[in-house]
Amino acid sequence: MATTAEQACFEAGIKFGSLYHQFAGTPISPHSTRSLEQAMAESIENQPFCTSVTVEIDDEKVADAIDHTNGYTELTGSLMEVTMQIEYEDVVVTTRMEMENGYPLMKLESVTQ
Amino acid sequence: MATTAEQACFEAGIKFGSLYHQFAGTPISPHSTRSLEQAMAESIENQPFCTSVTVEIDDEKVADAIDHTNGYTELTGSLMEVTMQIEYEDVVVTTRMEMENGYPLMKLESVTQ
Amino acid sequence: MATTAEQACFEAGIKFGSLYHQFAGTPISPHSTRSLEQAMAESIENQPFCTSVTVEIDDEKVADAIDHTNGYTELTGSLMEVTMQIEYEDVVVTTRMEMENGYPLMKLESVTQ
Amino acid sequence: MATTAEQACFEAGIKFGSLYHQFAGTPISPHSTRSLEQAMAESIENQPFCTSVTVEIDDEKVADAIDHTNGYTELTGSLMEVTMQIEYEDVVVTTRMEMENGYPLMKLESVTQ
Repeated sequence: MATTAEQACFEAGIKFGSLYHQFAGTPISPHSTRSLEQAMAESIENQPFCTSVTVEIDDEKVADAIDHTNGYTELTGSLMEVTMQIEYEDVVVTTRMEMENGYPLMKLESVTQ
Repeated sequence: MATTAEQACFEAGIKFGSLYHQFAGTPISPHSTRSLEQAMAESIENQPFCTSVTVEIDDEKVADAIDHTNGYTELTGSLMEVTMQIEYEDVVVTTRMEMENGYPLMKLESVTQ
Repeated sequence: MATTAEQACFEAGIKFGSLYHQFAGTPISPHSTRSLEQAMAESIENQPFCTSVTVEIDDEKVADAIDHTNGYTELTGSLMEVTMQIEYEDVVVTTRMEMENGYPLMKLESVTQ
Repeated sequence: MATTAEQACFEAGIKFGSLYHQFAGTPISPHSTRSLEQAMAESIENQPFCTSVTVEIDDEKVADAIDHTNGYTELTGSLMEVTMQIEYEDVVVTTRMEMENGYPLMKLESVTQ
């Protein structure tokens, strides 16, 4: 059987994969970054055991990525930083998505009991 | 070749399909309806020729649809009404998504020159 | 009221937006291009008035786009060409997505009665 | 710091959330279940540490869920069963999604070293 901490880490991973694949591809410009950040955070906070989500989309990177034919770009991992806190029974897991070697990486930051 | 009005209707359809399939499946509860409505509207308004989008998610229907094991449900067409205005050259197209016979239907409301 | 041809073009747009935003972001490598092409085409062919969809994902472009830390990339418009045929009453619409000036563009190719 | 087993469970969760939120909402009918199963499995198997994915979409449940106005339904968790195997260093994690009390639940089945 899985330990409580292992179960908590599984739950944390589910939230990360959900957030990423639900919202990747969303049309975005500097005019719509704040509303998308808030909707992403509040939507994933609905999921069980998820106590806190922060999403920061980088307006400058969005502006640089814009397709000037269309006037917008699509959300990808390279345009945002995400942190999450999951609480499962007595275990707290914190996770972060950030760039590493040019690619977005989802990381376990801490698992504490 | 397509007429300007046909091209405008094609653009209107693209926006509708985009909005629906980008956001269907998003975790939702009555606590997160307002932020999701705003993010959906602002995101699709980034697309070319799309001058206005309104999204109204029905809090009561969301509350009724909630899975009481998980505490949330997933966004589907039956939980929202959407209107859009597309302007392509001198043609204005208005569209609406609403329930018909129990199913969400995307409709052209008007095409005016 | 919209003409039959305008309605057909609206339906064609819906299918394009649906295909793009349902599947953009899917993890892909040259090992999984054929199955994804088939699933995308068959899934959108389920939608009303959609008689034929072809999706061609470019294996070389996928291989070039691969993140060598992760071993895969995510599907975007620049990696594929799509054609569709919509039949609405007596109108046949053909559409195509292809690259133009470095960006994927969805186009009406023909509207015939 | 997280243990190897906790890290493996985090990776397993990511894959589950990714699969679910990438493909939920896909238009489906009994004609397209086999191609979607294959594309879902092969797409997620591209992700790191994911050695095996099986997806079984229930044709009878799909047929029962079909909207007879539109001729198709949208993929949700209640229409499929999913299993996955993740290998992270010397840890093997197996997971399963199945219905419990009428709702789809993602579960850790085993964590072995």
